[in-house]
Amino acid sequence: MYSTTMPDSRESRQLRFAQSSGALSTSEIRDLMSLATAPDIISFAGGMPGNELFPLDEMDRIYNNLTQTEKQTALQYGPTSGLPSLLESLAGYLEAKGLPVKTNRLMITTGSLQAIHILARAFIDPGDRVLVENPSFIGALSAFRACQAELQAIPLRGDGMDMKLLAEKLSDEEPLPKFLYYAPNFHNPAGIIYSMEVKRQMIALLQGRNIPVIEDDVYSDIWFHEEDLPGMQNLKAINPEGIDICFTGSFSKIVGPGLRLGWMLVPEPIYRKCELIKQSIDACSPSFSQVIADKFIRSGEIYRYTARVREEYKRRGLAMITALETDLPDYVTFERPRGGFYTWLQLPEGSDATLILKKAIEKGVVFVTGKTFDPAGRQNDHMRVSFCNTDVESIRRGIPLIAQAIREVIEK
Amino acid sequence: MYSTTMPDSRESRQLRFAQSSGALSTSEIRDLMSLATAPDIISFAGGMPGNELFPLDEMDRIYNNLTQTEKQTALQYGPTSGLPSLLESLAGYLEAKGLPVKTNRLMITTGSLQAIHILARAFIDPGDRVLVENPSFIGALSAFRACQAELQAIPLRGDGMDMKLLAEKLSDEEPLPKFLYYAPNFHNPAGIIYSMEVKRQMIALLQGRNIPVIEDDVYSDIWFHEEDLPGMQNLKAINPEGIDICFTGSFSKIVGPGLRLGWMLVPEPIYRKCELIKQSIDACSPSFSQVIADKFIRSGEIYRYTARVREEYKRRGLAMITALETDLPDYVTFERPRGGFYTWLQLPEGSDATLILKKAIEKGVVFVTGKTFDPAGRQNDHMRVSFCNTDVESIRRGIPLIAQAIREVIEK
Repeated sequence: MYSTTMPDSRESRQLRFAQSSGALSTSEIRDLMSLATAPDIISFAGGMPGNELFPLDEMDRIYNNLTQTEKQTALQYGPTSGLPSLLESLAGYLEAKGLPVKTNRLMITTGSLQAIHILARAFIDPGDRVLVENPSFIGALSAFRACQAELQAIPLRGDGMDMKLLAEKLSDEEPLPKFLYYAPNFHNPAGIIYSMEVKRQMIALLQGRNIPVIEDDVYSDIWFHEEDLPGMQNLKAINPEGIDICFTGSFSKIVGPGLRLGWMLVPEPIYRKCELIKQSIDACSPSFSQVIADKFIRSGEIYRYTARVREEYKRRGLAMITALETDLPDYVTFERPRGGFYTWLQLPEGSDATLILKKAIEKGVVFVTGKTFDPAGRQNDHMRVSFCNTDVESIRRGIPLIAQAIREVIEK
Repeated sequence: MYSTTMPDSRESRQLRFAQSSGALSTSEIRDLMSLATAPDIISFAGGMPGNELFPLDEMDRIYNNLTQTEKQTALQYGPTSGLPSLLESLAGYLEAKGLPVKTNRLMITTGSLQAIHILARAFIDPGDRVLVENPSFIGALSAFRACQAELQAIPLRGDGMDMKLLAEKLSDEEPLPKFLYYAPNFHNPAGIIYSMEVKRQMIALLQGRNIPVIEDDVYSDIWFHEEDLPGMQNLKAINPEGIDICFTGSFSKIVGPGLRLGWMLVPEPIYRKCELIKQSIDACSPSFSQVIADKFIRSGEIYRYTARVREEYKRRGLAMITALETDLPDYVTFERPRGGFYTWLQLPEGSDATLILKKAIEKGVVFVTGKTFDPAGRQNDHMRVSFCNTDVESIRRGIPLIAQAIREVIEK
């Protein structure tokens, strides 16, 4: 049998190391995914929208009204930055949210993860420091690890990053971090909203230091309480002088992740670098998806659809809060989600969520362990319990089983 | 006005440098693209299929026969490696071409460019040497530059890479190149087919040296002469002992590039690295496109459609050959294309194709200059004249204008 030492880049070694050192392995993710879709399992593990919530009728209507020319566009290459028609309609959509579209450049990406990946490539050399939250979105951590960044984690509190620790990190000796990555609204996995006060402090700390911010805001349309909206203003919308803010977003939560469409809204000089990098990755994002997404915005379906799913996610989120309040032991605490897809349970310090997961699987429920979201891949005394892909009835049946699994491990 | 020195990775500097040192700049490409689609311009510049050739009726039929469950799958995340149903149907499609599907792993990528990009990430560290052809596919060059590879170019002849020069490169001192990248059939831009003899010599030179091959074969379905098929056998199908062959392909020429779907067929250890890297780039390829592509294969439409467009590309290719033979001055030589999208005109040594392009644009025709495809971004005494997106009538009107532009520059 032929065998060889495979040539292997530092990048691929780094990704394998990161995987082995804490986050879930590919096979574990695959196992969890198959559990998550097994018919007899109640899954609180996924971060995907519920299949039954997708806008199939709207999509049929859109497809069947496409002209021949639009269908040709859907099958053809498009510009690296995105189809002009979608760039225009999306700009309108974002401008209505108060984002400074006219003084920045918009680029369509293959999911918002690709936007984050490209920004990482534009800024990071191997060994560079970048600031991230703990816990943080695993896709972004993976993109930063692929660039061989040194991840410097700032713990999250109920209202955002710990500002005292951010100030300390920034007063460390040189070299300064290449950027700060954060997710302002309905955080994955922590479920929190950043307060305006914390955002004001972030601005004060970053201003004039030449540290860009990647602001990853993919859940903000899934709010439960309209009164939260003013406080959810993006740093990009505040548009503070002296900070380059790279705003990223996605169609995944407001149409469907299968389109694989996201975007970045960034200052022109950063845009120019990112366009070259995207050319080297996939040349352009799927035109087919872009034609559909454009129609979704222009027809106004995006507003009607988002309003509809927002109500359903709210029902699920509130059912989740009620179930957790009823069933969880007192030593498990959590922030009540006010939107998004996730609750983040804090176990007694030093608990091992992996043991609880094993018990939970025996009982027919799954969730994701805390260490998956720790930039260092270690801290495991949290659990991400999502409600995006689980109906109210299943939430009511499943959360008591989660609570039992916790009790059996912690109180044993 | 706020101004700053933008943090900037070596990768993004390298891409900007590569761009400024020869290949077309983004704005030049944009200008060419808009010229290429201007109604009064005859374009021989593009590498995209003709809009009028896309399988719109087949796509309508496929869309309208999708079940609700299939539409949900189309809007949902899928596995990083691709939708299971497409992996299965594509495996059958590739197996029928003699490729060793069972002893390798298949991954769906966001275009074949992404497959090449991921392989580059898996193998290359900054400064590593990689072997490429001169001329070569610009997308691959861009992916290798993004990894900061040192490109070592082997000139192409009418039957493939110059084997004498490949042997010399391989007998150079260490370090050995990380891989050899090549395109066996209907080369972009050179239009040639590798002969079996050259492929046999490649095997003999590479065997036992632990240098993987990236075999990029996206045009092989667009053959004009059935008798060429036996000689077009892929290295991957020959499957020589002791060489890791990473085979990449695409739906772009056989359905439509707007789907943004390609694939890699690679040995298992390489696959495992590539899956992690893809997770950090875009998590998965567009499900919507994958559902459509899967139906395209399973319904057999892919065979009927490919047979149809092959005839049309053949008509265009033969019209191109006739026009070039009639109109070109004797000092311009070219290989008669036997398939694919391109002819590659050799001008007298030292000619500057950019001057010819300027004249051509004045006359209402465009093509792409040779230096675009030179790994060093310098050699400019060639022109790529494509026939994929130009009907026979326009070819007959346009080629005399190309010939005039050449004469006016070379004979001035």
